[in-house]
Amino acid sequence: MENSLIIRRKKTKKIYLGGVCIGGGVPVVVQSMANTDTRDVKATVAQIKDLQKAGCEIVRVALPDEKAAASILDIKKKIDIPLIADIHFNDQLALAAMKYGADGIRINPGNIARDKIKKIIQVAKKRRTVIRIGINSGSLQKEMLLKYGGPTAEALVESALQNIALFENEGFDLLKLSLKSSDVPNMIKAYRTISAKTNNPLHLGVTEAGSLMSAAIKSSLGIGMLLYEGIGDTIRVSVTGNPVLEMPVAYGILRALKIRKVGPEIISCPTCGRCEIDVPGLTKKIEQALAGRKEYIKVALMGCVVNGPGEAADADVGIAGGRRQGILFKKGKALKKVKEIDFVKVLLEEIECMIEERTLD
Amino acid sequence: MENSLIIRRKKTKKIYLGGVCIGGGVPVVVQSMANTDTRDVKATVAQIKDLQKAGCEIVRVALPDEKAAASILDIKKKIDIPLIADIHFNDQLALAAMKYGADGIRINPGNIARDKIKKIIQVAKKRRTVIRIGINSGSLQKEMLLKYGGPTAEALVESALQNIALFENEGFDLLKLSLKSSDVPNMIKAYRTISAKTNNPLHLGVTEAGSLMSAAIKSSLGIGMLLYEGIGDTIRVSVTGNPVLEMPVAYGILRALKIRKVGPEIISCPTCGRCEIDVPGLTKKIEQALAGRKEYIKVALMGCVVNGPGEAADADVGIAGGRRQGILFKKGKALKKVKEIDFVKVLLEEIECMIEERTLD
Repeated sequence: MENSLIIRRKKTKKIYLGGVCIGGGVPVVVQSMANTDTRDVKATVAQIKDLQKAGCEIVRVALPDEKAAASILDIKKKIDIPLIADIHFNDQLALAAMKYGADGIRINPGNIARDKIKKIIQVAKKRRTVIRIGINSGSLQKEMLLKYGGPTAEALVESALQNIALFENEGFDLLKLSLKSSDVPNMIKAYRTISAKTNNPLHLGVTEAGSLMSAAIKSSLGIGMLLYEGIGDTIRVSVTGNPVLEMPVAYGILRALKIRKVGPEIISCPTCGRCEIDVPGLTKKIEQALAGRKEYIKVALMGCVVNGPGEAADADVGIAGGRRQGILFKKGKALKKVKEIDFVKVLLEEIECMIEERTLD
Repeated sequence: MENSLIIRRKKTKKIYLGGVCIGGGVPVVVQSMANTDTRDVKATVAQIKDLQKAGCEIVRVALPDEKAAASILDIKKKIDIPLIADIHFNDQLALAAMKYGADGIRINPGNIARDKIKKIIQVAKKRRTVIRIGINSGSLQKEMLLKYGGPTAEALVESALQNIALFENEGFDLLKLSLKSSDVPNMIKAYRTISAKTNNPLHLGVTEAGSLMSAAIKSSLGIGMLLYEGIGDTIRVSVTGNPVLEMPVAYGILRALKIRKVGPEIISCPTCGRCEIDVPGLTKKIEQALAGRKEYIKVALMGCVVNGPGEAADADVGIAGGRRQGILFKKGKALKKVKEIDFVKVLLEEIECMIEERTLD
């Protein structure tokens, strides 16, 4: 059943960013960006550690000035995941970022001139620093905006192709690309088009996607649709707020598409006039108890006999509710009746037990 | 720019459910389901009114027994949107639902025998009641589970095709179909397949999608991907919890794909080490002030000069932040500098003014 639904991922070129492998069909990597003041090393390191704990595998920091660039040296000493420096306007900061040990730099061709990009390429070649060409609907170069009448998918793609040519002419081979748009259909079209035209790894994201719920919807649509087509090597869900909140969304997308099974999957019903147990309350308690866990486990919390036994039997562990009680299912088998008051305790015991058994295997 | 991205929706057969037109390429309709006890008319009517206020256009209620069926009569008198009765196991309740005035009924072929379905069809034909064949991964008929080894996409499709044949042989022409699965790739595959094989309108949903965030991710993926391919006439985002919470997600999906532009679209950046205004705080205040509004308006709340002016100029109204101040944009033009303390007031004034102007047009 599952075989027919496995996604065939495009085999882009494989590159290494610090110790992390990107592209070539290896698992999709989850990125984020710190929103602390990069010059505040303590706050930045603390946020990166929180991000890493929540599942972030590559982190980016903004580099508004030389002092921020210099702080990379101290930040790098205290974190365990690759660090990318985000550069705009100022080519000197790109050079400084490499000098201070950034694993990668992201440059925006919308605001750095081509001759200055060439200089950055020369240094990156020597240092083997990964460069992301980060094209963005909000900062596309003026000539493209004029030519296409706005930041269309075609404009983003033409900007990307021009830059790929520039980098490849210089013999640079550690390239990653992003063509982010705040407009989901534009973003999908831009990535589909560029994916057909280049073999460089792609970093996917919907830019300026809004607060948590808006970002979850737009990113699931944009990033999800592309991943489902096999496009995308790294992803970022951009949330206005604490970037740690991006992680459950990113892994939720990957889990739902069966690209990476990380963390618990809770199957729970919306309840209806048939329901005689408190499914929302139970769901909340189980979610809270399992929050932050990395182990994949499928738990079904179902209100009644219509879909309850079917879904509960299809999960690792499940409850199919009846009148203030339920049937406990484990690996497809109905085990026993459980009183509603004992649901949480019994489920958590079974879940821990199953995770434990796996570890012993 | 937008023309190339307009979705070509499949022209399914057009049917009427109460006063609501479904299929044939008319706008996608947003549904939900009450989770009150249907026998409690007061609570059910109150929830349906809340749902309608939030944008729900068709509502479903569970019918566990005869008393619940009888309450349809009273509920229908007090609500303004079409009502669908959700029937499982008991064909008599389907007949009762029609007698008491349900605009549509949803039956589950997984738990009602074929000969009993025939009887329901005869009555529905006379009354012109719409019937949804609601196939669900958690309650597929046993023969299909045995044949396919589980609730696969192929199993859902075969069940649907068998039932379509049954209804069409009886000359029934007010059919709607759903093939919901709690597994997103299965759900996508099932709907894609059935859409190629039938012209009946399709109701889309990921079943048992979990609590709000999980439901938002899975529904954006499953419903969103199909809508983007032109598949789907009605949708439901199933949330474990208050069904009113489903509405912002449903309209968020439709808005991001430009299928229906309802409600404000907030473009806001995730902020980074460059940002010198409080974008998350501003976003929250603007979202709260505009919550529940049906008018479409695109508002950009951007932290810095990198993507700020581009996104703000692309929105109806926007702020591109600087150091504790920002530039106010309106319809692509930079209007004036605004102090951070005045952002909310100035933005809301401009927004109200623009909505007002449109009404006067």
